Amino acid sequence: MVYIAVMGHGVVGSGVVEVFYKNNKSIISKAGIDMDIKYILDIRDFPGLPYSDKFIKSFDPIINDPDIKIVVEVMGGLEPSYTYVKRCLMAGKSVVTSNKALVAAYGSELLEIAKNHNANFLFEASVGGGIPILRPISQCLAANEIKEIAGILNGTTNFILTKMISDGMDFKSALELAQKLGYAERDPAADVEGMDACRKICILASLAFGKHVYPEDVHTEGITNLTLEDVKYAEAWGGVIKLIGRVKKIEGGRISAIVCPAFVKKESQLANVDDVFNGIMVRGDAIGDVVFYGRGAGKLPTASAVVADIIDEAKHLGARKYIYWAPAEKGYVCDYKDMASSFFVRVKSHDKAMTLKAAEPLFGKITEAVCPDSPKDEAAFITQPMPEGQFERALASLSSLDINVISKIRVMADI
Amino acid sequence: MVYIAVMGHGVVGSGVVEVFYKNNKSIISKAGIDMDIKYILDIRDFPGLPYSDKFIKSFDPIINDPDIKIVVEVMGGLEPSYTYVKRCLMAGKSVVTSNKALVAAYGSELLEIAKNHNANFLFEASVGGGIPILRPISQCLAANEIKEIAGILNGTTNFILTKMISDGMDFKSALELAQKLGYAERDPAADVEGMDACRKICILASLAFGKHVYPEDVHTEGITNLTLEDVKYAEAWGGVIKLIGRVKKIEGGRISAIVCPAFVKKESQLANVDDVFNGIMVRGDAIGDVVFYGRGAGKLPTASAVVADIIDEAKHLGARKYIYWAPAEKGYVCDYKDMASSFFVRVKSHDKAMTLKAAEPLFGKITEAVCPDSPKDEAAFITQPMPEGQFERALASLSSLDINVISKIRVMADI
Repeated sequence: MVYIAVMGHGVVGSGVVEVFYKNNKSIISKAGIDMDIKYILDIRDFPGLPYSDKFIKSFDPIINDPDIKIVVEVMGGLEPSYTYVKRCLMAGKSVVTSNKALVAAYGSELLEIAKNHNANFLFEASVGGGIPILRPISQCLAANEIKEIAGILNGTTNFILTKMISDGMDFKSALELAQKLGYAERDPAADVEGMDACRKICILASLAFGKHVYPEDVHTEGITNLTLEDVKYAEAWGGVIKLIGRVKKIEGGRISAIVCPAFVKKESQLANVDDVFNGIMVRGDAIGDVVFYGRGAGKLPTASAVVADIIDEAKHLGARKYIYWAPAEKGYVCDYKDMASSFFVRVKSHDKAMTLKAAEPLFGKITEAVCPDSPKDEAAFITQPMPEGQFERALASLSSLDINVISKIRVMADI
Repeated sequence: MVYIAVMGHGVVGSGVVEVFYKNNKSIISKAGIDMDIKYILDIRDFPGLPYSDKFIKSFDPIINDPDIKIVVEVMGGLEPSYTYVKRCLMAGKSVVTSNKALVAAYGSELLEIAKNHNANFLFEASVGGGIPILRPISQCLAANEIKEIAGILNGTTNFILTKMISDGMDFKSALELAQKLGYAERDPAADVEGMDACRKICILASLAFGKHVYPEDVHTEGITNLTLEDVKYAEAWGGVIKLIGRVKKIEGGRISAIVCPAFVKKESQLANVDDVFNGIMVRGDAIGDVVFYGRGAGKLPTASAVVADIIDEAKHLGARKYIYWAPAEKGYVCDYKDMASSFFVRVKSHDKAMTLKAAEPLFGKITEAVCPDSPKDEAAFITQPMPEGQFERALASLSSLDINVISKIRVMADI
């Protein structure tokens, strides 16, 4: 009998217990070994549940009980998650987590500890909720050199953008609706400012390219400044605005990584990922483009990914699952200012032709961007791909000509 | 050192060798053990290749060489593939195959032999080419009760349908173009008559629901009878026609399975799967809908899936990968005539109103289907979901009223 401890009984934690008991027979059969949940750690009381007797308020029974072979961390946040997970792995207990902040901050260290103590550390649920993505990358696409990954990694912002695009709601109203429906937190910063997507692209990058990538090293922009006018320009261009997390292999064994809103062509598989859904495109040298689509969050989808990891760890007790990446390296993630991007730019203008003429020498060849209902007092254009540093200098020069920039959005026509 | 034999040096086989050597360093590192290809079995000569010395024309060296731990079967067809694979597994050698005909015909038997001889039998490439699908179903979605799977499983027919839908080409011209581009064989029957998709849905059904499903037990219709008028009706209805393979769990532990062209809503993730791409939707009780998208065929995508299986087998030599299903059971796949479907029906008619009035008592509530450019001398309608047997009797009654049926296509508004 394998005993499991679940740390945290919030949305995901309660979902884990629910899925574990709901599909118990087939889960045990797939694991090939009998399993049960012995402890559930939460400081709150949960009377009246069929498993209320399993609740504990201290970590001690978990770490001290040699019967506990698998520990599920679904508390979220960095502390005490980090300390608890580390202690479990050092005691040779395998750990499953859905905690992207934890993996993005400490992934390589925890994987190393797991390796040294013959335990497993799995976190399929930390990216894409219930969508299978980490295991396919590490196993199914193992024969590929992965060239890049680009995805819609945050359901909250994708819901907001979908409402802006399809229903013409402005950002503020769409955010309020998302909060009302429970898709956005009362403090939505981590979602709308891109941090959540950033943690996920860091985990994907670390796994796909083999070295830890910290969120601090990834330039991140959210969607709070997007307006309905930007959305309409994107439509006139033949696409939609999506919050994209993207990582690419570049020359010299380095990578580029970014999280930002971007124009994406309607023909892209990512353009059709709407509402709270996530979509992740993996580009390999042999396979070409593969896209994974599904619910990137939510109680049961996330819980089902956690329980799948539990099954895998139960099958591999004392054996190692090969998921591993090396520690971070200075200079491995290139400065975003050196990356080339094509930009959509909107500026205040009383004379379109003159404004575009003034812009051309600064940005190189530009294409006017048009939009049927655009405000009269502005001009818009799309640049050729150029290094961001150069683009920012050109933008500064534009401002020095008293041409005020309203918005600038990256154009990703190749995903 | 693990030695590999590759049986077959056609499109996929040569791709396997190419990918194996191209990404060799990372492949060996992921396998965690040194590997090389020792033999390539093909009756043809391949002089002038860097690995021409590895070719053999007889199976004997492979079966007799104890150094050969992994055998790759990429010859296709049932014989001698079946005999060779069986002998390899009985000798304790692990086998990887991309051969869907083989797995659909002998999957449960070969998995049983593999189990009894502590070997592994993997076939990720047999469905969806390079798209990760079998491993995600068996591992990542293991905590789910899978309720159904529906997919575009054949790239050739999807290319033809895309040309009919987007470019208004008729079936014959689109097929000729597919042949010209190398997407369709000179004898396209296996693709356009649905057999290829049928084998794949059988493999998916067997894996997801645990019992072998034979192609003979799955009602299969191809796309050869589809016309541009049907395509236009589908568009007016708000969707597209796709060749769908679908399997569902039904009451009593049984399943329903079918391969047929179907109306699919534009909003469906499958509607946006175009050209030679495949898309597979898996519906689970916890995860909801997950969709996998990518190249379902082609030399390198398929080869990359084969090589990923090689890596997995090299990591699990002497240990078992848990992929297994039980033998087929009589009566397990329900008769398609007992399954309920909604149908689109086009009939010859000189008086629409009268025809629809005559149809209503036979089919129950129907909805007229309209299409701007439809021929004047016909009527079209969509039925409510009804058992196919009952639908066919209603259709016969319609014919007995001298109303001739032009086409009937299933409507799948729920995928």
